[in-house]
Formats: sequence, structure tokens, C-alpha cells
Amino acid sequence: MCQLLGMNCNVPTDICFSFTGFQQRGGGTDHHADGWGIAFFEGRGCRVFLDPEPAVQSPVAQLVRSYPIRSMNVIAHIRKATHGRVALENTHPFMRELWGRYWIFAHNGSLEDFDPPLDGMCLPVGGTDSERAFCHLMQTLRARFGDHAPDVAALFAVVRDWATEVAKHGTFNFLLSNGDCLFAHASTDLAYVERQAPFATAHLVDEDVAVDFSEVTTPDDRVAVIATLPLTDNERWTPLARGELALFEHGKRVDLA
Amino acid sequence: MCQLLGMNCNVPTDICFSFTGFQQRGGGTDHHADGWGIAFFEGRGCRVFLDPEPAVQSPVAQLVRSYPIRSMNVIAHIRKATHGRVALENTHPFMRELWGRYWIFAHNGSLEDFDPPLDGMCLPVGGTDSERAFCHLMQTLRARFGDHAPDVAALFAVVRDWATEVAKHGTFNFLLSNGDCLFAHASTDLAYVERQAPFATAHLVDEDVAVDFSEVTTPDDRVAVIATLPLTDNERWTPLARGELALFEHGKRVDLA
Repeated sequence: MCQLLGMNCNVPTDICFSFTGFQQRGGGTDHHADGWGIAFFEGRGCRVFLDPEPAVQSPVAQLVRSYPIRSMNVIAHIRKATHGRVALENTHPFMRELWGRYWIFAHNGSLEDFDPPLDGMCLPVGGTDSERAFCHLMQTLRARFGDHAPDVAALFAVVRDWATEVAKHGTFNFLLSNGDCLFAHASTDLAYVERQAPFATAHLVDEDVAVDFSEVTTPDDRVAVIATLPLTDNERWTPLARGELALFEHGKRVDLA
Repeated sequence: MCQLLGMNCNVPTDICFSFTGFQQRGGGTDHHADGWGIAFFEGRGCRVFLDPEPAVQSPVAQLVRSYPIRSMNVIAHIRKATHGRVALENTHPFMRELWGRYWIFAHNGSLEDFDPPLDGMCLPVGGTDSERAFCHLMQTLRARFGDHAPDVAALFAVVRDWATEVAKHGTFNFLLSNGDCLFAHASTDLAYVERQAPFATAHLVDEDVAVDFSEVTTPDDRVAVIATLPLTDNERWTPLARGELALFEHGKRVDLA
């Protein structure tokens, strides 16, 4: 199984602490050694670091771990190849542009018999079921809303209906962001934690590292972290239910229902 | 003025030597301190490293300089901001997907009164004239060839006609690649060197570094390097003429005329 990591904040925040534990799952404390990637939104721009090498050995991962890029929306992925060979073009997360914004997508799971017609506005470059699903989502959004981005409630409704359909083909845990908000969909394992004042010390599961967030935050900061499995062993993580789509904005979960 | 660097090879080759000199132009030996970026095609995949910081100070540039990513098509850019503020979303090179392949574009120069109608299939995320031109090219190619990629001769003809039109709006030196070949268009400064057996020692203009390519190549290797200004002081660089579009494939210039 692949590993997903997402972060959504109300102020630009670095992900070094969470990434330190997450990186260990790419060939260290777990078996996901078929490449990894991470995308950071900074304003409208987005930086994607990809590496088909295992994360624990990767000099690119070392850079990400030590160079604090501050971002309000981050999506990371460590891959265990199922569909599609180990290659850069099959390394998540994937990026496309729609409505003049970048969109980032990463998927954990495997889809069977998922081969929807694609009209050419967005086509997969690699051979994964994941990128095919992402292209189908971009096409679905463009077909539904035309040339103009909808509000977040309308977007949420369409993403939810689409995810429900695609999830009939298999395991479909995914993270999706356009730089403004972050969507998380669970088929099996996905959990989140919301951090806000009063901040406390968090301790990683995968490595003996702790950080006192009260020393590195202001009272108004809010951060939501979403991961396949909880990254810390002394915080309250909330699992998503099977088939649930969660929306995170400004560092917290938003209920649109 | 911005600085462009491109490389096209017949076997995956690292760009560490050329990048060492090029990086010095980002705030070191020249004034282009408004960010930089580099894209490496590896098979169908593509890695883009972007940094809005000056290249000489950038830890990401340090990684690129020391971590030998082997690629057959590379495009790099150091920015001197003209249109569009210094921000990640305005940092070249830009990437889009068309016909299931990634396309990479970087531009040196400035366009005036260039505001073509965009139909929404590819829209700029940032505020540069360069990204707007790139989106217009993607739209032009899609409109001309529909859902299927043409052969390289047909592609060359459309890119050349398009570049001639856009260049009426100002200075339009650019590099473009889809991972198979590399296009270089000159308005003012762009020159290239072709390296092949027998390989010799090359010495950088911007830093006192030399490399003996005969020690790091095989007799069949071919590498073309394209840059705004020659990067070495002991090789024969060929300048492109004003309005000339050059195509590079398998490490050498190809004449389609």
C-alpha cells in the first residue's frame, strides 16, 4: 500500500516535522520503496519534487527535509507500485492546470477495470490507474463547469459524486488540492489531526523526534495534517469513514453537508 | 535579460558541468536574480525544479549541481523579471500536458501588446507574457492537429509559423521540448555547441572549471547545448540568426528545410 500525506494551513507552514516521519515509510519503517513525491503550493505557484528512488535514500528527500518550504497546501506520496512500472512518469503526485490554477492529485490504492473515455483535454502521460483517474476528474470538472471555476460547495458536490463512482472500481484513497483547499477521500485508511492553540508537543511514530509546536507557532495558526496512518503517537487523529470525502480549508475541516 | 540553457542528447547525460557555469549567472557573474528553474525529462516523465530565490544562493540549485540527474532533454532558465512580479507562479520553465506528453517552455525576452484569445484548454496561472505565449502555443497545436500528435516535421512547421507571429510583439528567444526533441527560437541571443567524438576538454566562461569529456563519454555519445551566451571559452558555438527556429534531436541539430 502507498502512503499519503497532506497538510492544509491558514498561514504558510513548513512540513519538515511530519515529512521526517513520513520519509521513513519509504523503505525504512515500511516497504514503499518505489519512489515518492511532494507538492507545495506557494501562492498560485506549485513546486513538485519527484523521485523514483526510495525516499529514505533520496537526496531530493534530504533537501525537502532540511529546506523549510512554507506552504498552505502540501500533498506527498510514497509509492508501492501496483499498476504501472517504477518510473518517473508514474510517480505521484500528478499536476495539471485547470481554470488557470494548478491541481495536484495523489492516490493510494488500486482500481480495476477503470477505463473511462477521455476526450483529450487531459491525458495520462504514464501508465497508472491513478493518473487516469485524475485526468478523468479534470475532464469531469471542465465538462460540468465549463470555462469558469465554481464555488467550493459546487466543487465539493461534483468531486464527491465522482469519487463515489470511481471507488466502485477498487481502493480509492486520494488527496486533491488546487492551492486553495484540500480534499481527502477515504476507501480504507486515511486519518487527520487538527492543530491549533494551545499547541503542545507532538512525537513521531516512525522516528524518535518530537517538536513543541507552541515554540514555532502563533496563537492564530491552524494546521490540519492528513495521513494514511497517524504520524504521531500522542495526538488525537480522526479516521475518515469508508467512502467519506473531507474538505479542509484554512487549516481545519469544513462541513458542507 | 534572462538566461536560457538547453541540452539535447542521444543518451541520458547529466548537465552538472554546464549548470555550474549557468548557475553563476543567477546573481553571481550576472544580474538575473529573480528566480530560476530547470526541467529534466527522464523517459516520458519530467522533473521541474523551481526556485524564486537567486540561483547562486539556492539550496535547490546546489542539489541540481551536485546530484547528477541523467536526461536527454533539459531546459533551464534564470529570470530577470519584466512582466509579472517575482513569485513561484512566474518562474520558468512552465509545464503543460498535451497528447499525453509533458511540454516544457522557457522564454527570454519581453512581449508587448500580446494578448491572444485563449479558449480555456490551457490558461496561464501566473502573470507573465511568457506563460501566456506558451498557453497560446498549446492551444494552437491542439487546434491545428486535434487529438493526435503530428510527426516532427509538421510540428516544426506550425511552431515556426507561430513563433514568427509572436516575435512581432517583441523579443522572443525560447526553448521548448516534449521530451523527444528540443526547439530553440532566437530573436536576439541564442547559440549552440554540438559535442561528439573525439571529445575534448571544455572550460567554463563563468567559473574556472574544466572537464575532459573524453573521460566521461563513449564514442557514440552526442550532446547539443544551447545557451543565451556561450558557456565555454574554448569551443565553437554557433549563434542562431534572428527569427531562426532550430530543432535538436538525438544530440544534434536537424535541418528540416
